[in-house]
Amino acid sequence: MSNTKLCVLGGDMRQLTLACYLSQKGYETALWGLPYTDSTDTVSAYCGDCSCVRCADPESALRGSRAAILPLPATTDGVRVSCNYANADSNNSCCELRLTRLMEWLPKGAPLLAGMPSDVMRAMARDENVKLIDYYNLEEIQIKNAVPTVEGAIAIAMKELPITLLCSECTVLGYGRIGKRLAYVLHALGANVTVCARSEKDLSSARIAGCKAMKLSDYQTHPCVADVLFNTVPTNILSIDMLEKMPQKMLIIELASAPGCMDARTQKQCRQKIIRAASLPGKISPITAGKILFESIEQILVQEGVLP
Amino acid sequence: MSNTKLCVLGGDMRQLTLACYLSQKGYETALWGLPYTDSTDTVSAYCGDCSCVRCADPESALRGSRAAILPLPATTDGVRVSCNYANADSNNSCCELRLTRLMEWLPKGAPLLAGMPSDVMRAMARDENVKLIDYYNLEEIQIKNAVPTVEGAIAIAMKELPITLLCSECTVLGYGRIGKRLAYVLHALGANVTVCARSEKDLSSARIAGCKAMKLSDYQTHPCVADVLFNTVPTNILSIDMLEKMPQKMLIIELASAPGCMDARTQKQCRQKIIRAASLPGKISPITAGKILFESIEQILVQEGVLP
Amino acid sequence: MSNTKLCVLGGDMRQLTLACYLSQKGYETALWGLPYTDSTDTVSAYCGDCSCVRCADPESALRGSRAAILPLPATTDGVRVSCNYANADSNNSCCELRLTRLMEWLPKGAPLLAGMPSDVMRAMARDENVKLIDYYNLEEIQIKNAVPTVEGAIAIAMKELPITLLCSECTVLGYGRIGKRLAYVLHALGANVTVCARSEKDLSSARIAGCKAMKLSDYQTHPCVADVLFNTVPTNILSIDMLEKMPQKMLIIELASAPGCMDARTQKQCRQKIIRAASLPGKISPITAGKILFESIEQILVQEGVLP
Amino acid sequence: MSNTKLCVLGGDMRQLTLACYLSQKGYETALWGLPYTDSTDTVSAYCGDCSCVRCADPESALRGSRAAILPLPATTDGVRVSCNYANADSNNSCCELRLTRLMEWLPKGAPLLAGMPSDVMRAMARDENVKLIDYYNLEEIQIKNAVPTVEGAIAIAMKELPITLLCSECTVLGYGRIGKRLAYVLHALGANVTVCARSEKDLSSARIAGCKAMKLSDYQTHPCVADVLFNTVPTNILSIDMLEKMPQKMLIIELASAPGCMDARTQKQCRQKIIRAASLPGKISPITAGKILFESIEQILVQEGVLP
Repeated sequence: MSNTKLCVLGGDMRQLTLACYLSQKGYETALWGLPYTDSTDTVSAYCGDCSCVRCADPESALRGSRAAILPLPATTDGVRVSCNYANADSNNSCCELRLTRLMEWLPKGAPLLAGMPSDVMRAMARDENVKLIDYYNLEEIQIKNAVPTVEGAIAIAMKELPITLLCSECTVLGYGRIGKRLAYVLHALGANVTVCARSEKDLSSARIAGCKAMKLSDYQTHPCVADVLFNTVPTNILSIDMLEKMPQKMLIIELASAPGCMDARTQKQCRQKIIRAASLPGKISPITAGKILFESIEQILVQEGVLP
Repeated sequence: MSNTKLCVLGGDMRQLTLACYLSQKGYETALWGLPYTDSTDTVSAYCGDCSCVRCADPESALRGSRAAILPLPATTDGVRVSCNYANADSNNSCCELRLTRLMEWLPKGAPLLAGMPSDVMRAMARDENVKLIDYYNLEEIQIKNAVPTVEGAIAIAMKELPITLLCSECTVLGYGRIGKRLAYVLHALGANVTVCARSEKDLSSARIAGCKAMKLSDYQTHPCVADVLFNTVPTNILSIDMLEKMPQKMLIIELASAPGCMDARTQKQCRQKIIRAASLPGKISPITAGKILFESIEQILVQEGVLP
Repeated sequence: MSNTKLCVLGGDMRQLTLACYLSQKGYETALWGLPYTDSTDTVSAYCGDCSCVRCADPESALRGSRAAILPLPATTDGVRVSCNYANADSNNSCCELRLTRLMEWLPKGAPLLAGMPSDVMRAMARDENVKLIDYYNLEEIQIKNAVPTVEGAIAIAMKELPITLLCSECTVLGYGRIGKRLAYVLHALGANVTVCARSEKDLSSARIAGCKAMKLSDYQTHPCVADVLFNTVPTNILSIDMLEKMPQKMLIIELASAPGCMDARTQKQCRQKIIRAASLPGKISPITAGKILFESIEQILVQEGVLP
Repeated sequence: MSNTKLCVLGGDMRQLTLACYLSQKGYETALWGLPYTDSTDTVSAYCGDCSCVRCADPESALRGSRAAILPLPATTDGVRVSCNYANADSNNSCCELRLTRLMEWLPKGAPLLAGMPSDVMRAMARDENVKLIDYYNLEEIQIKNAVPTVEGAIAIAMKELPITLLCSECTVLGYGRIGKRLAYVLHALGANVTVCARSEKDLSSARIAGCKAMKLSDYQTHPCVADVLFNTVPTNILSIDMLEKMPQKMLIIELASAPGCMDARTQKQCRQKIIRAASLPGKISPITAGKILFESIEQILVQEGVLP
């Protein structure tokens, strides 16, 4: 085993997977705030044995660590590290880690890796002279995450629609990482896919990939009828006028982060069923999502000189 | 509207869909024993308006009909017509239709179309001089049904596995209609697919389609490790010895009809999770499954001279 | 090296490839009537070293052989073994092997493996008490050969058409081994594929695979317009009336064996360009085609007890 | 017909196609320096009737034109407009158009659309106060052109290799527009594809698309063995050392513009067969390539206010 100590704080099965891979690479990996038993067994079944050390408190996990790794997202309340499973432990009271405490306990010079840190957290790190790195910022992590996101979306559509995706009419709003993969998989399954995007470049790519393609502005004036609409664009595209022109049976699967493709008022008036399907990778494929985190975080730790 | 009267007795949303399409073709379509409200709305949303006539009792539905159409399967208890939603109605007592009564009320010369009728039922029809036709016997209905079956199986695998199908190891036992479509879809999703089949012909086809292929007998002596195993062969293939060599995390999705790929004893001893996923088309895509029934039944009715 | 001697007589690079693989398996492999130098180098580059023994005359090649393997097709003139490259040798006169001689020199009990032997040849073998086996009769050899056939057909279409296959209109007549693979590849390249076949089963399969599908009889009354028509059915389908309804620019690629999809008279009157593309595997992918022969012939020799 | 006059000068079947589509939109389209008869018939067969006016000299073609459109590339000798078919005409002497003359005759304010104009030509336009627009600069034109380029490359590989692409080992250098499409098509045909690229982002995308992926720098130290190598990167990647490690039978298909993947000296020493396959769209699919030009040029003319 190498001398390098790392610590993984909070999170869910993805962080357990990440920690498992790090320990297999020979690094001393301290854990705090992560789920036990069942999840650990699942991680071992897929990733092999791990020799992480669970710590009773975050301070001892952090002590001597060359880097600390926080969940994705790093914090949900802006005050504490995300710690989904913490409450399941016996002593809730001690199962929290405030960001202020974390920065205090973090060894000097050790970078703090966090997924989508909030602005407040960034400011805090600046004040405390902590090097904060957003590992979710790497384009490849988002490319890889498109796969579990799309598998989750497809599974939802298969389950919810009383028809097969084969020969169904699907609309995909946006042709970025998720839109591309989604359109590809739907097409492979035999669906009739219409991609709506802004740029000619994206429309051309979509057509070559076997889809119909429509300028987003044209779609907004002449929305096409579909059995299911997948949105991947985090801006208001759909108005109540458009929704009224579309059939009530049309299922809307929202994959973009809030506010998604309609504002709150439109959402309320909308007759169609909307399924909000955010953060699918961690939910539908936590082991794969954890492995994706590992690959990118290892690369960052090498760049930062923490790992050789 | 044509003068031809048809009747659809029992079943679920598939039969409602079938009836809807028949009525749209202009035939007088009498229904009995089929679900109300919600299901009817869904059928209309996907298939358009229908003008079927619901009858209070099977006798009036049958009166004057040129053909009677039973569910798939036609009967589950061997005595009564399958009538899933019957119990939901207010007067349970009257909501049953015995096969004996059916044969009695069926107009002379009218063919009885049934899905997978039991041997007892066939004998009964012979005795009563009723022309019984198994519409599930058409190869194209089974080819088409492979699609919803596979979509259901894929959705289950996506939901159950903590990893993505992309890069997962999948074993498919059998390379008939369902095995072929399943291997194709898994391969399109980026899974590593191993097909196990008996004939060289099937093995060659599977290899050309981008899969690894193994003789079933070789698989039985050297089972390959997988994240998920899909069985499509209705004979005992897996022994407890084989299962012990395979990882516990391996998910088994059973798509073949009973007894499936292991006998009752093996099933009990099996450490791996088994999901029985029979009759997926009616469950996961009832509208599509109903449309498939319609296409084949219409063709049979034309051949029988009932429809022009 | 094993004691078993085999001989390979006549043919082209496919037979050289076959012989190379047989010798690599440790069998003494005698060759006669096969091309030299360039072809041998190509075979070695792809298949590795081979230690076949070239014989000056067929009699010595046959002496002591446990089986003799003839080309595909075994004979083109009904009298001599096919020997494409024979004429390229210095002494043409001696470079022929009459079937009558072959049967005479063949060791007692040794099976004679031949590709598509003619009826005359079969009769001759019966008379001489020779066990004649048609190795091309195996379904898997035909399934595997569909791949090089289709690659050849695709390359022709790409070269001949002034448009891309993406978005082109393609008609495929027949949905057997070649038709299936062809429709699959064309669809993968983004072409709009219409499959014409006789059975509902094939039409259903084609539709599931993303193609339009038409009953052959409907096509004959209402032929659809296309940029390219691929025929895989060895019976007259196209009449001059049909061809007149189709655009002159439509390219016809004939993949079926003679007479193909039109009779001699229709062919003469046809304004469209016809490319006869028979026997593509040996022409476009001789190494692959030879390997396919090897796999099937080895299997037959095992079944016959010649190889262990 | 609209009052707008446009002129198309020089080029090949692509420009004929472009002109045909422009005339079909109702614009007066003057041609000069374009091929006759056969090509015109082919264009009509695919694109429909066109009412372009052929001019005897470029001056009359230019007179009154609201825009002038030059070929792709606009000039090959830096002095004259590319005019491939000019020499085939009877009076060679008059069949040339010098850029200096062109700029002189071009009506004031009319934009000059040219494909990949040289630096000299750009400077000339600046001096003459001519608005020169490079229509090949649009990303969508390059995305669309990737399709015929890839079909051409695939047809070459099918024709040259004695094996099928199914199960062949293919290396693709670069994962830009052409590399992506090429990898996709090869994978669809069942080839084993290794993509070599510089960025993690591209490597991740290639892996998701079913390919193996290697950092270009790793490939340069450990080149992988392949049956065919496709290069899409216009920089020297291959050294003679690398080429010596790779088999002689490996076919190299060079798709990048000069100098391609090796310098002149390496090219001379290289034992492997190299096929330079530049400018494939115009060669293999001139009608499609012309249609692609039309779509982009029409869009530019609208932006420039020439067309409504």
